[in-house]
Amino acid sequence: MADPANAYENSHKSDKRKAIIEAARGRFRHYGIGKTTMQDIADDAGIAVGTLYLYFKNKDDLVLGCAERFAQMHREAANRVLSSDLAADKKLRQYILDRYRAVEETRTGSKHTVEIARRVIKLRPQRFEEDDQWLYENVLSILQEGISQGLFAIREPERDTRIFVQAVLYFLPVAGMEPYRLPTEKSLLEVVEWFTDKWRV
Amino acid sequence: MADPANAYENSHKSDKRKAIIEAARGRFRHYGIGKTTMQDIADDAGIAVGTLYLYFKNKDDLVLGCAERFAQMHREAANRVLSSDLAADKKLRQYILDRYRAVEETRTGSKHTVEIARRVIKLRPQRFEEDDQWLYENVLSILQEGISQGLFAIREPERDTRIFVQAVLYFLPVAGMEPYRLPTEKSLLEVVEWFTDKWRV
Repeated sequence: MADPANAYENSHKSDKRKAIIEAARGRFRHYGIGKTTMQDIADDAGIAVGTLYLYFKNKDDLVLGCAERFAQMHREAANRVLSSDLAADKKLRQYILDRYRAVEETRTGSKHTVEIARRVIKLRPQRFEEDDQWLYENVLSILQEGISQGLFAIREPERDTRIFVQAVLYFLPVAGMEPYRLPTEKSLLEVVEWFTDKWRV
Repeated sequence: MADPANAYENSHKSDKRKAIIEAARGRFRHYGIGKTTMQDIADDAGIAVGTLYLYFKNKDDLVLGCAERFAQMHREAANRVLSSDLAADKKLRQYILDRYRAVEETRTGSKHTVEIARRVIKLRPQRFEEDDQWLYENVLSILQEGISQGLFAIREPERDTRIFVQAVLYFLPVAGMEPYRLPTEKSLLEVVEWFTDKWRV
């Protein structure tokens, strides 16, 4: 049986965790990771630094918390659009636009984004690959919906999803991460061939 | 009337200029701009440093010379492909592949590419825009050729060229230049709409 007091405590803990991550995010974005101390974050979150250490053992843990928050926002935004009543073409447009705006805001909202992104990639190299993978899965799911709605005629949805994702990745750059997502000759040729196939009489 | 002696001297000058640029390029790529001296470059080019100054007044001038050499190679490679007997689809494939390989080699062949690219953008901000503009013009010219050959059916060649160029720019990243080519929401939506138009039943 669920213990209501325990549930209350868990939700309270989760709220406090969120508040700490928000405080850390604000500090990292305004002053950078290097210049931020655990004390600064505790102060901004309105808790004692000893309490902060109960939740996160160091700044790296907090950087990962911020990265996880960003991933969580991607999942939530995607679920909102995917479960909406929009037709597949509108849904695709909305999903990509949301992604663009989220990436844009993260990338341009602070002069420390390069430092933050590099730290994330060091601590958790797979973080950005996951994002690309979700993008792929969500686009594929929208395309399949469009096909079953009779809105899209797509012979190879996996292939077209791959091409589409490649074509829009240019618009979703991660600050300072250029060497990370290395475009390959093979995928480039796939894009070129996709276009020429569509143009060919 | 052309003076043959003068023509010989000009061609000789042009050869020496090329040899100096090659020497500078080698030094910049192996040691970076900061650690290279005019004396190093003169030594590698097999000339006296006084002679070097007759051609280039400082290292920045040499950096621009290297950038111009890269632009010249783009023009030459483009002309070779565009004037070839290939059908338009094959021509497009070859042109884009050449571009990819040239950018890839420039970007990955040295650990100083970020320093070099940043210096070029500081000295001549329009340099990379020109490259994108040529890419656009060359693709458009290939598409139009494909249309007149009856190979491609394209209603709005300018629009499709714009989309195609956006879709392949991801594959042509310039080291350390991420803030330079800023993708816009408007062009992203144009790409998305282009795809959904092609998929729509």
